[in-house]
Amino acid sequence: MKELPIHIQLQPESGRTLYEQIYESIRDEIRSGHLLRNEKLPSARFLAEYLQISRTTVDMAYGQLAAEGYVEARPRRGYFVSAFEELYALDMPSRGEKPAPSDSAGKLSVRYDFSPNAIDMRFFPYATWKKITRNILVDANSRMFSLGEPQGDLQLRTTICRYLHGSRGVNCEPEQIIVGAGNDYLLLLLEKILGRHVHVAMENPTYARAYRIFRSCGYPVSLVPVDENGMQTEALRRTGAQIAYVMPSHQYPTGVAMPIGRRMELLRWASEKPERYLIEDDYDSEFRYRGKPLPSLQASDADGRVVYIGTFSKAIAPAIRISYMVLPYPLLARYRETCGFYSSTVSRIDQTILNEFIRDGYFERYLNKMRKRYREKHDLLLSELRPFEHDFGISGSSAGLHVILTDRRGRTEDELARLAASEDVKVYRMGDFRMKEGTGGAPDSGEPVGQTKEQAMLILGYGGLTVEEIREGAGRLAKAWKVGGGGFRNGYR
Amino acid sequence: MKELPIHIQLQPESGRTLYEQIYESIRDEIRSGHLLRNEKLPSARFLAEYLQISRTTVDMAYGQLAAEGYVEARPRRGYFVSAFEELYALDMPSRGEKPAPSDSAGKLSVRYDFSPNAIDMRFFPYATWKKITRNILVDANSRMFSLGEPQGDLQLRTTICRYLHGSRGVNCEPEQIIVGAGNDYLLLLLEKILGRHVHVAMENPTYARAYRIFRSCGYPVSLVPVDENGMQTEALRRTGAQIAYVMPSHQYPTGVAMPIGRRMELLRWASEKPERYLIEDDYDSEFRYRGKPLPSLQASDADGRVVYIGTFSKAIAPAIRISYMVLPYPLLARYRETCGFYSSTVSRIDQTILNEFIRDGYFERYLNKMRKRYREKHDLLLSELRPFEHDFGISGSSAGLHVILTDRRGRTEDELARLAASEDVKVYRMGDFRMKEGTGGAPDSGEPVGQTKEQAMLILGYGGLTVEEIREGAGRLAKAWKVGGGGFRNGYR
Repeated sequence: MKELPIHIQLQPESGRTLYEQIYESIRDEIRSGHLLRNEKLPSARFLAEYLQISRTTVDMAYGQLAAEGYVEARPRRGYFVSAFEELYALDMPSRGEKPAPSDSAGKLSVRYDFSPNAIDMRFFPYATWKKITRNILVDANSRMFSLGEPQGDLQLRTTICRYLHGSRGVNCEPEQIIVGAGNDYLLLLLEKILGRHVHVAMENPTYARAYRIFRSCGYPVSLVPVDENGMQTEALRRTGAQIAYVMPSHQYPTGVAMPIGRRMELLRWASEKPERYLIEDDYDSEFRYRGKPLPSLQASDADGRVVYIGTFSKAIAPAIRISYMVLPYPLLARYRETCGFYSSTVSRIDQTILNEFIRDGYFERYLNKMRKRYREKHDLLLSELRPFEHDFGISGSSAGLHVILTDRRGRTEDELARLAASEDVKVYRMGDFRMKEGTGGAPDSGEPVGQTKEQAMLILGYGGLTVEEIREGAGRLAKAWKVGGGGFRNGYR
Repeated sequence: MKELPIHIQLQPESGRTLYEQIYESIRDEIRSGHLLRNEKLPSARFLAEYLQISRTTVDMAYGQLAAEGYVEARPRRGYFVSAFEELYALDMPSRGEKPAPSDSAGKLSVRYDFSPNAIDMRFFPYATWKKITRNILVDANSRMFSLGEPQGDLQLRTTICRYLHGSRGVNCEPEQIIVGAGNDYLLLLLEKILGRHVHVAMENPTYARAYRIFRSCGYPVSLVPVDENGMQTEALRRTGAQIAYVMPSHQYPTGVAMPIGRRMELLRWASEKPERYLIEDDYDSEFRYRGKPLPSLQASDADGRVVYIGTFSKAIAPAIRISYMVLPYPLLARYRETCGFYSSTVSRIDQTILNEFIRDGYFERYLNKMRKRYREKHDLLLSELRPFEHDFGISGSSAGLHVILTDRRGRTEDELARLAASEDVKVYRMGDFRMKEGTGGAPDSGEPVGQTKEQAMLILGYGGLTVEEIREGAGRLAKAWKVGGGGFRNGYR
């Protein structure tokens, strides 16, 4: 019988399911490099026969590996080891390309993780949150435990409305707001509102999760290049898309802030045809370090063409599964007609806690405190990166919780990430946020993303690190990359 | 001194920074057209002297205006109003037609509402819930506020797994369970797993919300008549459907409990083709008054053809937005491949509270107490309905929180509901649970549901009423419907 290219030792006594054992064996083979990138895995049927186990068990293990990005399914050809250096994509956070491995399947933990998605919870007012919760549960009783309105409780929607108007210039009525358990859910709801046959355009690079969601909805997704002003309007026109998903305040991950001129071009594009809309993901507008936050794109929308989506996961805590979506009236009418009956995904208790947290000023105080903390980290990181300026361009630093380094010495992202890892530092490769033709299944008209070859770009998030960790991490990067020293990687090690 | 071309009224008392006031004044001058495009702004130095404020403050305001594209800096010449005609469209005019206010508008409240959905929260252990919450928030801290696993926290899934096995005979591993914020959400996720082109069959009458959700997914839905054993297998075969959505333990709303024979027929139907599955909605299996609850359909599924869906909304509280779905392995593999990246819709805090509520035995104690309460109401209602037995058949009373009255005097459901309303009592018409051809948009092959014409059926839920309300409500119904008296409605009033 043909030899199996993978070492799989099933241990019936281990107490772990066969599926887990197979998944882990193959994952370890990939990590250890015994399975090479682009290498084909044995067919599920072959492996099942070889191991004398059910085909489904193997399918499961392969599915899990695919979900975690170790392998990719190629239609009618089978599973292949993914072409990127997975070790560095492993715990790509929720805004990154890969989903969190379920059941925390063996993550590599890195000492200095410059994750662009991590936030700092050290200063969260747990006591306040607890106090509010306690008070609510006191006079809670049935009312609080009953099912709320599908769109979310009116008080919370009113509070969000005021907050958005004051901080983001969003113009809306509470009736336009839909509260939901996370952006992913709101996008699923939006799919029901927009219908099944929608052509979406996204910036590239972009927020990979939203890309994958649109793909899982079966939408064709066109990828539009980003220049220093954001999504290129002419390229958008060429796609023939009807929906454009944009992050105008602070494009993720490039950090580009879209000026009013480009915004007006996009709004004009949307107004040209009845079914065109812009989805504005305003994911981290709370944090800006020069002047006050740019107003939202929705604030300039005279024609009801912008769907505004925001979340409290970043400004408060990832566990606060409360996001909101502001629908223009035409879409609100369709929402009520086609899916107004979907019951709310957020408990009234959680809605009430959040409402009081904002209403009583705790949210604002916390935001101000965090702006200060993040600004300190931001300034520290930039000063620590000063020695890097000879070898790297530094950009995207006006807002948000990450900066971009652009290599000037012709090194690749993989190379730089690997060098960083050798110093126990994790940085994120722009390439992982550049969507590629065909990713996620449905075909797309994604233009070649170009420029990746020439310029390696790395994302350094500082939200979750302490000042000490930022200082130490930057120091290790300087060593790993021999910044300023002009050393050659060949001389390294 | 030269006159200032801009109207700037600084209000030291306004609590807003000088920088903000200058920024806003100039922005408004531009928006309102008082400053024309390409018009030069006064130099920062001049404005600072004029207003007697620091030069830096003015620079910041100009910088902000430039950042937002209202003005542009021209080297060595100063700041000029940008040349976008759209700038004047910035202010917010009409946003199109407002839709009609949502359905919730103008509901009549009725004194005695026999709603089949209402539950009794009077005995909910709020104190316990509060205590658990308090303890969790004590040692909560970051971990608790971080984003959990997409499928739900492993501890909770393990607890649910044990509970389902013990109480419902469900056979599964925690890895097969997906926790989500309500059944509606889980059905949306299931759509992503099953794909876009699925033909669903449902019992008729059925749970209208699930019907509408399948319709909003664009699925054709066939309606299959229910006999005393539940969904008719032969009729199901004729539909050509691939998915059958059933409520075997206590069909909603008919109350029919599916015997093992019919269950086996359905399982056989599913096993005949690879893509066939049964969705078992086990919505209220907790409450049963004769013997112990029937095991779930999933418990008899040897072939991995049953998707089991349950919720805590009914057994604990509607506000507890936590439902769960048990996927057979083939679908679990597909879930991980196609939508394993969707982040959880339930906060870890809520998951942890629920987990401890169940794990520490509070849930079981509460269930036992509620079974007792509901049984009392159930028995009381049935005894109060004894006088009705001449005019009505009474059925569906072996489980759940409602009973069915079937009229024997040829009156219509509308008529009986109207008579009840005249006594301030609300009963529910079976007709409202009978889906009809074309409801919800997409075409369906729903067979004519027949029999509605002949027999008026009314649903009386008692979960939410007190014993007094049940007694009084039943008395008023007897009066409204002249039960036993054999009176004719013509003679009424």
